[in-house]
Amino acid sequence: MPELRKDPIIGRWVIISTERAKRPKDFKTRIKEPPERDCPFCEGKEDCTPPEIFAIRDNNSEKNKPGWKVRVVPSIAPLLRIEGDLDPRGRGLYDILNGVGAHEVIIETPQHIYNIADLEPEQIFLILTAYKERLVDLENDPRLRYVLIYKNYGYLAGAGKIKHARSNLIASPIIPKRVKEELVGARRYFEYHDRCIFCDMIRQESEQKKRLVYENEGFFCFCPFASRFPFEVWVLPKNHSCDFQKCNEEELKLCAQAIKEVFLRLKISLNDPPYNFVLHTAPYRRKRPGYWRTILHDYHWHIEITPRLTRVAGFEWGTGFYICPTPPEEAAKVLREIENA
Amino acid sequence: MPELRKDPIIGRWVIISTERAKRPKDFKTRIKEPPERDCPFCEGKEDCTPPEIFAIRDNNSEKNKPGWKVRVVPSIAPLLRIEGDLDPRGRGLYDILNGVGAHEVIIETPQHIYNIADLEPEQIFLILTAYKERLVDLENDPRLRYVLIYKNYGYLAGAGKIKHARSNLIASPIIPKRVKEELVGARRYFEYHDRCIFCDMIRQESEQKKRLVYENEGFFCFCPFASRFPFEVWVLPKNHSCDFQKCNEEELKLCAQAIKEVFLRLKISLNDPPYNFVLHTAPYRRKRPGYWRTILHDYHWHIEITPRLTRVAGFEWGTGFYICPTPPEEAAKVLREIENA
Repeated sequence: MPELRKDPIIGRWVIISTERAKRPKDFKTRIKEPPERDCPFCEGKEDCTPPEIFAIRDNNSEKNKPGWKVRVVPSIAPLLRIEGDLDPRGRGLYDILNGVGAHEVIIETPQHIYNIADLEPEQIFLILTAYKERLVDLENDPRLRYVLIYKNYGYLAGAGKIKHARSNLIASPIIPKRVKEELVGARRYFEYHDRCIFCDMIRQESEQKKRLVYENEGFFCFCPFASRFPFEVWVLPKNHSCDFQKCNEEELKLCAQAIKEVFLRLKISLNDPPYNFVLHTAPYRRKRPGYWRTILHDYHWHIEITPRLTRVAGFEWGTGFYICPTPPEEAAKVLREIENA
Repeated sequence: MPELRKDPIIGRWVIISTERAKRPKDFKTRIKEPPERDCPFCEGKEDCTPPEIFAIRDNNSEKNKPGWKVRVVPSIAPLLRIEGDLDPRGRGLYDILNGVGAHEVIIETPQHIYNIADLEPEQIFLILTAYKERLVDLENDPRLRYVLIYKNYGYLAGAGKIKHARSNLIASPIIPKRVKEELVGARRYFEYHDRCIFCDMIRQESEQKKRLVYENEGFFCFCPFASRFPFEVWVLPKNHSCDFQKCNEEELKLCAQAIKEVFLRLKISLNDPPYNFVLHTAPYRRKRPGYWRTILHDYHWHIEITPRLTRVAGFEWGTGFYICPTPPEEAAKVLREIENA
C-alpha cells in the first residue's frame, strides 16, 4: 500500500510508493547535454569574470590573479542587482518590489573539477568558509532579508554548460516562501513543545537509524521521512543553531566531512546523478516575537540535497503534492551501506 | 531592473526578469525523446486497458468496445488505491495515512492525437463533461477530500511514452498544499474585502488588458501577474463559482472554446511546447466556516497551464522562489496577437 506522509515542518503531504519502489539502477540520469564551453572559472582565467568580491588566497598572491583556493565573483547575468531602492508599491491587487539584491558565484576550486564529491574535505571546508564570510558581509546591507546559497550540478538539475564546481548566492529583500513556511512550521512546533522540531527529528532518527545515511560528531545526514524526491538527503548540525554563519571552524570542518561523504555516496550509488543543494539558514533580522527564547531556538539551519532522478510531473508544480517513487528507508539503506565512501 | 512580484493569492514572491527577457524563439523544447510504444488508448484497443469506469459513447455501442468518444479507465500503475481504510497514525513526530484514493486515466479521444490543441472544441467539451461526471461520482466516497485533474504533455513535462491525449485524475484523502494555500489566501482576502480575489483579478485584468490572452462570454484567459513560468496562462470562469463540477453545459462549451484557443496559441507561438495543465477546484466537504457566505464565495475554480520551457533550477524546488525569464505582459502580447488561432 502506498503511504501518504506529512512533512512535520511545513505540513506538506507526499505520496511514497512502497510497491515497485525504484532502485538506484532504475533511474536514468544521462541525457544528451550541450557541449562544454571554455571554462572562465579555472585558475589563470581570472580576467574572464568580473572582479572578485572575496577570495581565499595564498598569502602573497594578488587580487584577481592566480593563487586562490575559493573565489567569489558577481554573476555576469544577475537575477537581482545591488544598486537602487526597493521602492515597494502596489498596482491594484498586486505588490511589486524592485529586484534589488545580490547575485554572486562562488567558484569552489581553482582546478577544473565539477562534482563536489571529487573535492577533498579540506577544500569543502574552504567553500563553507566562503559561504560564511559572504553571509556575514551581506548582513550589513539593511535592504537584504535572506541569502540563498545553492548549487545546481548537472544539466538536468538546471546547471549551465560549464563543468566547474561552483555555488550561486542570491541575496534578496524577501524571504522565499518555502523558507517562510519552514520558519512558521518550526515556530508553531516550538511554541507547543518548547523544543526545536529539527532537534527532535535528529533524536527520533538516531533511535531508529532506519533513515540514517551518515553521521559524525557534529552532523546527522538522513533521508527525510516525507522525502519529496528519491534519495533526498538532509544534513543537520547536531548542535542546535539557527544561523549557518555562526558555525565555528571545527563545526565547518565536520560539516565538510559530512558533505563529502553524502555526495560521494550519491555519486557511487546513483552513477554520478545531477543534483541540487540548498543551504537553509535563518533570515537576517528576524522579527522579534513575544518571548525571547523563540528568537534563539525555533529554527535549525541545514542543507537539503535532492538528486534529480525523475522528471518532474506537472501536477507536482501545480499542487505542491509530490510523489516519491523510492521510500526513504530504502534510499538510506543503499547510501548507508556503501563501503569506504 | 528585474521586478519582484508577489502572488496575491498565496503570497509567493517571483523574480520577473525584465531585461534580456526571453522571447518565444529563445526556448528549446526539443530534446531526444524515447521511442513511442504501441498505443493502448486508441479505439479498438479497449482490451489493452483495465475495464472502463465511465465513457461517453454512441447510443448503441457496448461497454469496453469501440464506439466511444471519451473513456475513463483505472491507471495500471495507480499512485493511490481505492481499497482499504485510511488508518491515520503517527510515528513519533511523523504522520501517516494509507495511500487510499483513486487514480484514473481520462482518454480524451478515440483517435491517435496527442495535443489537446489539435482536438475540436466539441471534443474538448466532451472531455470536460467526463471531468465533471467523475468529480460528481467520486464525491460519494466519504474518504476523499480532493480530486486533482491534470495533464502532462510532452516528455519534458513528465508525460509517458505514449502520444495519445489523456488526463490523469487523482482522488486523494488530503488537500494538496498548494490548493490549501490558495484556499487560505482567497479566504483571507474575502474576509477583509467581502469579495472574491479571483473576481477582482478578472476585473483588474479586464481594465488593463495588458496580460489578456483570450476571452469569450464565459472565460477570461491571461498570463498571471506573478507568473512562475514563462508563458504561464490561467483560464478563469467569469461567473464566480467554487466548484468546476457545478458548470452547466453552456459553460463547459465556452470553457472548451477557451482551452482550444489557449493551447492553439501556445502551440503556434512556442513550436508545440511541452506543458502541464492542472484543474484547480474546491475540495469536497469543505469545513463550514463561521458565516455562510464564505462557503459560497471565497474560492473560484480555474485552470492553470504552464508550458515547460526552462529547466527547473534547483533552488526553485528548495525555496519556492521562482525566476520567470519572460514578463507575463510580453508573453500575453505574443499569445494575444496570434491571428486566426
